[in-house]
Amino acid sequence: MPTPADAARLAGAAAGPRALRPLLDTVLAALAEGAAARCGPLPAGGPDAVTRRLTELIGPTLPTHGTGPHDALRTLVTALAEGAADPADPHCAAHLHAPPLAVAVAADLAAAALNPSMDSWDQAPAASALEHRLARDLARLVHPRGPAPDALVTTGGTESNLIAALLARENLPPHLTLICGANAHHSVHRAAWLLGLPAPTVLPTPRGLLDPAAVHHALTTPRPPHRPHAPPALVVATAGTTDSGAIDPLRPIADIVAAHRAHRPTALHVDAAYGGPLLLSPTHRAKLTGLDRADTVTLDLHKLGWQPVAAGLLTTPDRAALTPLAQRADYLNAEDDTEAGLPDLLGRSLRTTRRPDILKIAATLRALGTSGLAALVDRTCRAAADLAGLVAAEPRLTLHAPPTISTVLFRPAGATDQHVAAVRRRLLTEGRAVLGRARAHGPDGRPALWLKATLLNPFAQPNDLAALVKLVLDQDPEHADDRPPHRRSPQDTRP
Amino acid sequence: MPTPADAARLAGAAAGPRALRPLLDTVLAALAEGAAARCGPLPAGGPDAVTRRLTELIGPTLPTHGTGPHDALRTLVTALAEGAADPADPHCAAHLHAPPLAVAVAADLAAAALNPSMDSWDQAPAASALEHRLARDLARLVHPRGPAPDALVTTGGTESNLIAALLARENLPPHLTLICGANAHHSVHRAAWLLGLPAPTVLPTPRGLLDPAAVHHALTTPRPPHRPHAPPALVVATAGTTDSGAIDPLRPIADIVAAHRAHRPTALHVDAAYGGPLLLSPTHRAKLTGLDRADTVTLDLHKLGWQPVAAGLLTTPDRAALTPLAQRADYLNAEDDTEAGLPDLLGRSLRTTRRPDILKIAATLRALGTSGLAALVDRTCRAAADLAGLVAAEPRLTLHAPPTISTVLFRPAGATDQHVAAVRRRLLTEGRAVLGRARAHGPDGRPALWLKATLLNPFAQPNDLAALVKLVLDQDPEHADDRPPHRRSPQDTRP
Repeated sequence: MPTPADAARLAGAAAGPRALRPLLDTVLAALAEGAAARCGPLPAGGPDAVTRRLTELIGPTLPTHGTGPHDALRTLVTALAEGAADPADPHCAAHLHAPPLAVAVAADLAAAALNPSMDSWDQAPAASALEHRLARDLARLVHPRGPAPDALVTTGGTESNLIAALLARENLPPHLTLICGANAHHSVHRAAWLLGLPAPTVLPTPRGLLDPAAVHHALTTPRPPHRPHAPPALVVATAGTTDSGAIDPLRPIADIVAAHRAHRPTALHVDAAYGGPLLLSPTHRAKLTGLDRADTVTLDLHKLGWQPVAAGLLTTPDRAALTPLAQRADYLNAEDDTEAGLPDLLGRSLRTTRRPDILKIAATLRALGTSGLAALVDRTCRAAADLAGLVAAEPRLTLHAPPTISTVLFRPAGATDQHVAAVRRRLLTEGRAVLGRARAHGPDGRPALWLKATLLNPFAQPNDLAALVKLVLDQDPEHADDRPPHRRSPQDTRP
Repeated sequence: MPTPADAARLAGAAAGPRALRPLLDTVLAALAEGAAARCGPLPAGGPDAVTRRLTELIGPTLPTHGTGPHDALRTLVTALAEGAADPADPHCAAHLHAPPLAVAVAADLAAAALNPSMDSWDQAPAASALEHRLARDLARLVHPRGPAPDALVTTGGTESNLIAALLARENLPPHLTLICGANAHHSVHRAAWLLGLPAPTVLPTPRGLLDPAAVHHALTTPRPPHRPHAPPALVVATAGTTDSGAIDPLRPIADIVAAHRAHRPTALHVDAAYGGPLLLSPTHRAKLTGLDRADTVTLDLHKLGWQPVAAGLLTTPDRAALTPLAQRADYLNAEDDTEAGLPDLLGRSLRTTRRPDILKIAATLRALGTSGLAALVDRTCRAAADLAGLVAAEPRLTLHAPPTISTVLFRPAGATDQHVAAVRRRLLTEGRAVLGRARAHGPDGRPALWLKATLLNPFAQPNDLAALVKLVLDQDPEHADDRPPHRRSPQDTRP
């Protein structure tokens, strides 16, 4: 069976758009068909059922003979859409998993079709110029008083936190220690492990927040007897924790780091992967006071920026801090080429080949403006406040705290942790809702497991939120298992 | 000025395809318009001119008020396409920078619209099941006799090489040393630096290939006096070097590593980022004999697999080797969730949030089959052989060697290194061709600078290759600077 000839057409050059158009029609139809077949925030049945269904739909994944691009796209995209947890459904609210904007997705298509690679100018002439400009503009938002703000584009918060720790390891004297709260993201620990650094010093955060007094104490801990100087430290604070969206007290922490710098080489990194875009909003901006004083800041525009994955950034007030990333590879940035004026891009990432994620960010900012993006931030925070209000008004539920950003922790009043975990899994398995989980102090002051709704859909309506609350209430431990599972009807799908 | 309401529509759920369709029309029109305005492999004028033109076309990158999605996409995509180095143009042949297949680009649109994130099952039910299956199928191609072949999906060769070194650091006893050839990719050095390992032991490769005898010698070097045992070693070989596409003698190297394992903990990693897909081709497969014996293999399907960036893999014959990547984050893979049957995905990457790059790979394989992809590999290698033939037949040019994969090194006969570098830059600046550069032994046995054509366009025609040769010949050192620069006319653009 010969492979259909149209399977091998290219996306680029003058003929590319003509080759793409019919294929995109097939993809859009398959997306619609898959969403209709799913008819809810995620497929019902749990992992085994989803895997069985996928196998049934697609058959072998590595065939010898091809079936052409239309069959391939129709089959795989329908199967993926039918089996997706779609963040555009207001009941898909477990994680920092944003529903992407159509304009960003459309721009990302152009990135894939042109396929520039950001490791050398001669693979990405205009794309690298665009990144150069917008990265600096975005960094200036975070560090308006920095001497030379700049930003690296990363695969997300995990890579940004890794690079922040790497820069501290290279820019400070040897024997770096990381100091973070128990509320910090797991990637901080992973970064230390990867980089061959000791495990971070973890400060307890019983109220979910890093305590400036604890940071002060950690920085004044006497130096080890066999070391002539106090070892350098990187303090990592969080602006928007994964568990509750809490924002560490950035200004007091920045003050303490500044005060200790006289006797101990100390840097401050803020993981603002989630909270960073509050900067755009006049309503919420003040929650980030002190952020501009960090040496490095992690920002993920695939969270409160509604980009498809990935759209990570690491900003710095002074691009001189990025010097340790510089490297030379004759085939990409030979010295005589750099002298002759070809920009040297290799020191702008840990990756070599790199997709121009800046394009979708630029298109979104141009389409919406910073004010339009701020309006989406405000809407999202308002939806979370609305949900918290519904929970607080419902005596059968306990609200953890009013949301700082858009995360709402709540639990059935008087439930056990096992019940909370089971409610979440049951809603998942029945395909009704994707809720998260978080451990935080309970009503009695002891740690407890909470249901977590991370709202990232700016268009979630009050009736969506009320329905979400009702879904949880219906999972009452005493009756939940008795009722036969049922799904929403197809008429009930939301835009 | 209010932001246009349609700027904020989402790509997902039932309404997503309707929101996307008009935006995709705008993107396709802009891609066509930009390619027509460029009318060549890259824009003329060099970095300053490209940056000036971009600024002229797009204005400010961080506006307060938005202009809506159509203006944003039209403006930015046209500017990016006009300023692209388009790998679909046969004269864009500097790097391992592939022209992507339309089917892969179309599939990638669905990945962006659905936006699954591969760090937990409840963000990617079907996408994670698809990755699970296809990753194992692809690993079985590389390691047909492995006990439990598996593959991680990475951002590319650089990350794959990093993870290979990390796994060796974690799976072997302490004090790992990397041993590689001077022909190895710079990311091997970078991995050692990142991971806090000593700089690799670099074996000279005067003929561009790692010498098995040198590997043997390096592995038998007496242990340091203060160490009770010989430190563990990771030998890194390359199947498809960046400079010349050379393939290290894999079988003899695997034999030597196996022989040394008795007295020294030793692992073998093969960086087959470029050469790996030769496995699909009955014609070229034998060049990779021995590859299956590596402990880890780097493979980039955004090179000889025609995927848009990124489509990296790291394969292993035994998934038990991946255990060091396991980690626990209560919000993503709580123990009771894993016990209840929710797949634990967090140990499958160094990233957390992660795009489903497997979808475009799956769509390509289904559309073309392995035989169809092999046909593209064969065509590409044949184009390189044709180019080498043209060069060899031309007395004014010197061919370095017949190509192993699809890289052809050549230089004007008797030219100086400065002239070679200047020819490359002049073709770039004039917007006529994107050629690479590589240092390799010259006709007199001494190192020299060569022009490098890395052919990755399976549809490059003999007349394209002849025109490329002519472009280089026309840059004769004696007249090149006298002729006024001229561009190809618009009629002359290629499909």
